[in-house]
Amino acid sequence: MHNPADQSLAKKLPQGTLRDITPAYLEEPRSRFHGQAGLIAAPHDAAETAAIIRACAEANVAIVTRGGGTGLVGGQVMPDGPAPLILSLERMTAIRAIFPEENVLLAEAGCTLQQARDAASTAGRQFPLSLASQGTAQIGGVLSTNAGGVNVLRYGNARALCLGVEAVLPSGEIIHDLKRLRKDNTGYDLRDLLIGAEGTLGVITAASLVMAPIPPEIGTAMMVVESPAAALSLLALAQSRMAGCVTAFELISGQGLRFLDTAFPDLRQPFADRPDWLVLIEVGLPTGLSADEALEALFVDGAESGLVSDGVISQSGQQSTDLWNIRETIPDANRQIGAIASHDISLPLSEIARFITDATAMLSAQGDMRINCFGHLGDGNLHFNLFPAEGRSRDEYDPIRKDLSRAIHEMVVSRGGSFSAEHGIGRLKAADLARWADPARLAAMRAVKAALDPKGIMNPGVIFPT
Amino acid sequence: MHNPADQSLAKKLPQGTLRDITPAYLEEPRSRFHGQAGLIAAPHDAAETAAIIRACAEANVAIVTRGGGTGLVGGQVMPDGPAPLILSLERMTAIRAIFPEENVLLAEAGCTLQQARDAASTAGRQFPLSLASQGTAQIGGVLSTNAGGVNVLRYGNARALCLGVEAVLPSGEIIHDLKRLRKDNTGYDLRDLLIGAEGTLGVITAASLVMAPIPPEIGTAMMVVESPAAALSLLALAQSRMAGCVTAFELISGQGLRFLDTAFPDLRQPFADRPDWLVLIEVGLPTGLSADEALEALFVDGAESGLVSDGVISQSGQQSTDLWNIRETIPDANRQIGAIASHDISLPLSEIARFITDATAMLSAQGDMRINCFGHLGDGNLHFNLFPAEGRSRDEYDPIRKDLSRAIHEMVVSRGGSFSAEHGIGRLKAADLARWADPARLAAMRAVKAALDPKGIMNPGVIFPT
Repeated sequence: MHNPADQSLAKKLPQGTLRDITPAYLEEPRSRFHGQAGLIAAPHDAAETAAIIRACAEANVAIVTRGGGTGLVGGQVMPDGPAPLILSLERMTAIRAIFPEENVLLAEAGCTLQQARDAASTAGRQFPLSLASQGTAQIGGVLSTNAGGVNVLRYGNARALCLGVEAVLPSGEIIHDLKRLRKDNTGYDLRDLLIGAEGTLGVITAASLVMAPIPPEIGTAMMVVESPAAALSLLALAQSRMAGCVTAFELISGQGLRFLDTAFPDLRQPFADRPDWLVLIEVGLPTGLSADEALEALFVDGAESGLVSDGVISQSGQQSTDLWNIRETIPDANRQIGAIASHDISLPLSEIARFITDATAMLSAQGDMRINCFGHLGDGNLHFNLFPAEGRSRDEYDPIRKDLSRAIHEMVVSRGGSFSAEHGIGRLKAADLARWADPARLAAMRAVKAALDPKGIMNPGVIFPT
Repeated sequence: MHNPADQSLAKKLPQGTLRDITPAYLEEPRSRFHGQAGLIAAPHDAAETAAIIRACAEANVAIVTRGGGTGLVGGQVMPDGPAPLILSLERMTAIRAIFPEENVLLAEAGCTLQQARDAASTAGRQFPLSLASQGTAQIGGVLSTNAGGVNVLRYGNARALCLGVEAVLPSGEIIHDLKRLRKDNTGYDLRDLLIGAEGTLGVITAASLVMAPIPPEIGTAMMVVESPAAALSLLALAQSRMAGCVTAFELISGQGLRFLDTAFPDLRQPFADRPDWLVLIEVGLPTGLSADEALEALFVDGAESGLVSDGVISQSGQQSTDLWNIRETIPDANRQIGAIASHDISLPLSEIARFITDATAMLSAQGDMRINCFGHLGDGNLHFNLFPAEGRSRDEYDPIRKDLSRAIHEMVVSRGGSFSAEHGIGRLKAADLARWADPARLAAMRAVKAALDPKGIMNPGVIFPT
């Protein structure tokens, strides 16, 4: 069921790459954008990818590269303009090689993050990137959006976990640069330029990824803190005690816990009184140091400094899973409650506590609503999401929704923060980028885009507004 | 004493920025290249830097940006073509701000690495980049060359330690992007493009740098291993035991120890019999785990696995300094002995042991010589340096020097390695890059260069041969 107008292009594509157009290729999780497609092609390797890109360039047909489709900013769909070709990496799912002694894994772009994690695990290692959509999100998309998740504090974003790429440029040329080196200073860092470019500069078809040893001692704790400021002091204390071995440090608000009560009443929570602020801490420690004891000592030290008032340290893998489950069910609870607006923001660590106070005050002046502020505090990355007051509906907030988001983003940017910490720009935030990005940086970005994709065929409308 | 021909340009530069041309600005440490200068300008801030760059662009005068001048590949001098303007960052030496609670430091490009390290230290933190020339090397150069050093294993290269930059583009526009964020997915990663571009895409004038907590327990040990393969197995064992808390893992050869005997006979060495291979290990561990005991346990485990046969664990700061001193005096000993050729190479970890064996065999077929192979084994980065046989002079090897280096680099590249691991391309290796770089990558690099520096005024001859 291809668009008949595209039959001449279809004939130029490598045999056996075309797929039927089905709705799944045209959707994005938040249903803000509805895509269209003239053709869908799924290459088997980089050479076919290159042939598809060359054919599209010749025919002046736009290309939307699609991985697992889990992105939250509409980078995976093209709702307007002439129908694009959707280039799906779904057939490139091989783990090409594993080098346990190097802590390196070569994965094709269409592998899901879970597949890469499983492959590492089979080799007695970990691929330390973890996010809610990992069963669906693909390595190519994870890299193209420089995905984050819960272990960035210790292991970095996706960018920090990639040593090299195989990629096809808009010219149809293939970069063969799947290096497995920790040090290689031979020219411009095109790898990091492609990573985070959201498919606008080319298509990553495979990557060499960094694995890490599994820490011998892993521990999880949940601690009650009085405020985000206390949580940040506890983080600093934990980092200095643990020599940087804190693998996750997540903030959870009382509002989030109460949403869980509403949406998932059977989910057991460790603190009966639903404290205002909690942190979930995970540590990965060397042999010879019990994680339990280290977390206990942190708690004692934190309590003596007045930072923590209550806490629970997991005594088993199951307890640890249960604690993580609380954190990871919050987005589901949010969906059930129904947000007015969500914000994926980051701030310099020393600005966070004041931001939460000031933004909360600013919002309460705008109307009656509930705020669920949670996220990767260790990275300065908050999900600052707004919900209707109890008994009111989302629709009632329609008239002020955009203004609320704008006000929050302005406050974030004015304090040195980012209006897109881990989700990227996509289509959703292209206008925001044009508004807030440093003009010289934006001009240089445009120059790079024009240099590598002079016809502008790669994911038009993403990052740069059309 | 400016070049009279440049007086019209001189008049257009910001007042008080010109400096006299002295030999120090025209030199590089290995004296392979001798620079020239029409003018030397040292701006006080980014605005003056921009004015200088605009004036040069208008006059079509090349710009060689100069930091501490410690680079080893001739990137800091321009020996031929019309005399350039040398842009020295020597007047931009401020530590603009320190945010201990964020582990962030804002430093101007002209700060020495040592100044940045001292500033972090004063704030109770560390700036974990360490290299021999840190007293002279400047932050701008360290970033522009993506410098490495001894702690890359734990903390990454310079690139991994920079969150944002202030930089002037060849257009004279200033990028204000000194962000202090661990997560910020708002468009292309121009920061990492400027880092490692060796002054060919613009001038970094300031940077926000990552500090790290000082580990509570620090320990150093030297262990005797039978072979590089055993050293690599010991590294894997150490990493899995220490949850990634190994901060340095340096390989030292018996040849290096014997060079120390010759050049520095008073330097005390821990092993009387000068073993064939040693490793220097440093760990930085959490509170509650004695570094001594952890290293002792590693030694016992390594001995049981047949990986180590002897060892010494430092019992004091002084002993640790003494052990490091052995490692860090090796380059001085090398200089005294006088190398035929030096190679800054990296390899995938699983290729290293075989490479050392094969390269040694290949060289012994070429002639009688001594090899001092040492370096940052944990990063797969070796300094593989060739010396005359005892009693022979360097000059005797002149006829085969280039062929030897070429043969080594070919062997490295054919095994997935890099012919410039941490020193960069500069002028010295521009032809090597043209020869060995992936053609599509090189074409894309050239496109980016042409897009950002269409007149080609920034450090011509560096990275791309003229």
